[in-house]
Amino acid sequence: MVFLQEEIGPTNSFSVIIIMENTKSSLAQKLAKASQSHLLQFWDELTPDQQAELVSDLDSMDFQEINRFFLSAMEVSNSSKQEKMDTRMEPVPREVLGSVTRDRECLKNWEDEGLLCVSQSRVAVLLLAGGQGTRLGVSYPKGMYDVGLPSHKTLFQIQAERILKLKRLADQRYGTKCCIPWYIMTSGRTMELTKEFFTRHSYFGLGKDNVIFFQQGMLPAMDYNGKIILESKAKLAMAPDGNGGLYRALGTQRIVEDMERRGIGFIHVYCVDNILVKVADPAFIGFCVQKGADCGAKVVEKTNPTEAVGVVCKVDGLYQVVEYSEITLATAEKRDKDGRLMFNAGNVANHFFTLAFLQDIVRTFEPQLQHHVAQKKIPFVDTQGQLIKPDKPNGIKMEKFVFDIFQFAKTFVVYEVLREDEFSPLKNADSQDGKDTPTTAKHALMSLHHRWVLNAGGHFIDENGTRVPAIPRNGPAGSGTAVNQNLKDGTDLPIKCEISPLVSYGGEGLEELVSRREFQPTLVIDEDGVHELVKNGV
Amino acid sequence: MVFLQEEIGPTNSFSVIIIMENTKSSLAQKLAKASQSHLLQFWDELTPDQQAELVSDLDSMDFQEINRFFLSAMEVSNSSKQEKMDTRMEPVPREVLGSVTRDRECLKNWEDEGLLCVSQSRVAVLLLAGGQGTRLGVSYPKGMYDVGLPSHKTLFQIQAERILKLKRLADQRYGTKCCIPWYIMTSGRTMELTKEFFTRHSYFGLGKDNVIFFQQGMLPAMDYNGKIILESKAKLAMAPDGNGGLYRALGTQRIVEDMERRGIGFIHVYCVDNILVKVADPAFIGFCVQKGADCGAKVVEKTNPTEAVGVVCKVDGLYQVVEYSEITLATAEKRDKDGRLMFNAGNVANHFFTLAFLQDIVRTFEPQLQHHVAQKKIPFVDTQGQLIKPDKPNGIKMEKFVFDIFQFAKTFVVYEVLREDEFSPLKNADSQDGKDTPTTAKHALMSLHHRWVLNAGGHFIDENGTRVPAIPRNGPAGSGTAVNQNLKDGTDLPIKCEISPLVSYGGEGLEELVSRREFQPTLVIDEDGVHELVKNGV
Repeated sequence: MVFLQEEIGPTNSFSVIIIMENTKSSLAQKLAKASQSHLLQFWDELTPDQQAELVSDLDSMDFQEINRFFLSAMEVSNSSKQEKMDTRMEPVPREVLGSVTRDRECLKNWEDEGLLCVSQSRVAVLLLAGGQGTRLGVSYPKGMYDVGLPSHKTLFQIQAERILKLKRLADQRYGTKCCIPWYIMTSGRTMELTKEFFTRHSYFGLGKDNVIFFQQGMLPAMDYNGKIILESKAKLAMAPDGNGGLYRALGTQRIVEDMERRGIGFIHVYCVDNILVKVADPAFIGFCVQKGADCGAKVVEKTNPTEAVGVVCKVDGLYQVVEYSEITLATAEKRDKDGRLMFNAGNVANHFFTLAFLQDIVRTFEPQLQHHVAQKKIPFVDTQGQLIKPDKPNGIKMEKFVFDIFQFAKTFVVYEVLREDEFSPLKNADSQDGKDTPTTAKHALMSLHHRWVLNAGGHFIDENGTRVPAIPRNGPAGSGTAVNQNLKDGTDLPIKCEISPLVSYGGEGLEELVSRREFQPTLVIDEDGVHELVKNGV
Repeated sequence: MVFLQEEIGPTNSFSVIIIMENTKSSLAQKLAKASQSHLLQFWDELTPDQQAELVSDLDSMDFQEINRFFLSAMEVSNSSKQEKMDTRMEPVPREVLGSVTRDRECLKNWEDEGLLCVSQSRVAVLLLAGGQGTRLGVSYPKGMYDVGLPSHKTLFQIQAERILKLKRLADQRYGTKCCIPWYIMTSGRTMELTKEFFTRHSYFGLGKDNVIFFQQGMLPAMDYNGKIILESKAKLAMAPDGNGGLYRALGTQRIVEDMERRGIGFIHVYCVDNILVKVADPAFIGFCVQKGADCGAKVVEKTNPTEAVGVVCKVDGLYQVVEYSEITLATAEKRDKDGRLMFNAGNVANHFFTLAFLQDIVRTFEPQLQHHVAQKKIPFVDTQGQLIKPDKPNGIKMEKFVFDIFQFAKTFVVYEVLREDEFSPLKNADSQDGKDTPTTAKHALMSLHHRWVLNAGGHFIDENGTRVPAIPRNGPAGSGTAVNQNLKDGTDLPIKCEISPLVSYGGEGLEELVSRREFQPTLVIDEDGVHELVKNGV
């Protein structure tokens, strides 16, 4: 029997697939060899369409490789790392650390260096945007999320405008016409929507050629016996291969070659969900370049031992991120003589790499990276074909992490910044009150811009013309303070201030706009000027 | 006309009051002299009962004094302090600072010293409990609140049991039979309920004679012209005179004399709302005693410039607490060379005084303290007798603060502790999600006890017998971490562990109970032993 099936893929560009009985039987052999025969157990119940899709999915997969991944991931996972980790961990030595609070006299110099690199078109930005906003409660890519700023800009737009502004600052400073290419890693789940979004917004003025999309791989979820899980009779449970899928994708999709062609030397890698991210932060880049580093991590200080954040440290002499779940309380509570936590370099998924280093990774080291195991509750069909939603973990997803390559760095450095200035990730929906929500992200950004205005000599007043204290009652988002802006007695106003990245990248250039002026919230500063959006409209 | 009125006061002990027309007219003269005649404007509309109550209220008040308070409070409030404050502020010098993270080698010594003082019955505890749980959404005293611990203990009970345990520790250590008297300052609004609560609970085993209640004063709310505000035609708007009302009450109610009689030398003062408070903390007391201090403040490190917390510092060479609303952002952001905030001694209303110092305050300095002005929205009756609820501040409450006396200290010291170990105040109802709620308080306490168990060698397991990581996914209450305990994948359990203060005051003595043992939450350790309350009951 022969049948034709046209698959309407999300790209609308898939070709016609011809499936024959012998295709199925060769597939069955391949699966049997890899002990994954159960994937065809419902074959006879499937429609021709479903059969064709399943074949298409299975055909592209290397089951021998997947089984190898599973075995080595489980082996690492089962070795009782935690007990050993404590004795193997060493903190980041002071000499590889740059700090915005402790090395303030160097900041200007680092920033100049970074801006020079930008002006020479040697800096690229690489965005990790493969995740969907599942925890956020949306089905589209996180970067398309609008946290509710006065401008209603999305995360993508905010980041795009920062890139554009930084380019302009570098050009102004050094009289150049530079380019900061933006590489955006999506996944099978986010690619089309992301591309379409950028097309619709004309690439936010960055130019189509300077925004390069590529796609990370997917891996199947597996049960504890190494069997791939079926999420329906015709469909495997698939998930992106972790943000460390970056390195494989850089090779398979020839991104490294594209960087070479463009003369890129330094790459800033970050995650889409951080609304405060200083894209291609010149101070960070300049610090790494001056230190001669091939690999660098931006961190924020961990101040509470039980804070759920991974820490950058050395293990057996090699740098890595140790996850909070991997260490004992005794280690988490260790302190230096100066009272700081010994392991306080909190990872925020914000990294610097030289292109040479990425080339080595892609060409040599990537295959050595083992997958991490994430135990999950994965819905599956049982042998009767019933969909089961387990109430405890029943299988694993396999992921690589972007920081897995620190171990290969020849010169590794760490750059410590202030959480309240640079890190506020968007992870959860507002209904799950508390941490990392649209509300906390919005307040973190508006608090930063509020501080920019104050430091540029501006003031805020309430509706009676009284100056509002610099620090409002319920502090803005940031460590240790709530974002709940209560107007208890009318004496404290919530912070409401948004400054377009096209006006200021990092607080610069605001004096002439705000100095000695008084503003009633909401204050919005954009390319069209300074606006006060008073209650009930403009 | 003569009439009799028996007022049923909250104590049921008030005497019969006789009011005559000439009483009213002498009162009217007194009020006219103080420009407060408007207080009688509705006299003719009042029932005899209301007239009697109003006369009783007014009769006890010294209007000349109240007017003086108003004038001097407004004078201080109107001087533009903020501009000047920045140049006048100096941080706490390192030599007067003791720190649990930076002076760890001294801790044992300080604790021994403090425990010795306790064993000699020289230490008293003084609780500030004059506030009602208005923001918390309850009408009874905050100390009676149950945040929802497995034991359902109230804040009062937790604090009482810590006192009892500390007494036992001191007695065991030094072979004594000591006493830690507990002075509890209530207000007119909380006195009767508080006393009744303690009677009902047999003083939690502390002995009736060792729990001494006294009452802070009340002051009327005033409009910006110095007129006392009527909250109804027959009733003045009254409020407690701030936690600094303590010092006047210590004198008027002869509390200082009671302390003298008992041979008290050192007093630990704290606020009722902090669920983690180490009542009569021997390390804090020992540190202050060894430093020869007459006055000491326990603080937590402020790590974010915009955190809404007052800071202990010097102003014009004298120690005080500068409120977050009083300083500019530039000052709040100032940092030392070591990267810490320069003004980082976050006040937590937790103080040490010698009795000699309190005697000086009560006898000499208290009258010099000026009231602070708190602008409030105060409901009032207008001249037509209509009740108005203003939507912006229309008047002030006058308050003294407990830290107003720092300026008179001869030897002032500061003791820095960890927020996650010692400070989690209960201020807001859970519905106002976020900061300082019953949920955050409960989690802060259970997180502390969880850490005690881990550090004593115990472990927690989930329902499958798998050990739970020391640091759960969404960290416990504390700086920078959320309390929202999501069970995303079943791999992280929320922290559920409560240890009775009668078993451990500060984490001591748990090894023999938990070492090398595995527990499934909820773990409860009390005087009856170690219990695991597994889901669906015991």
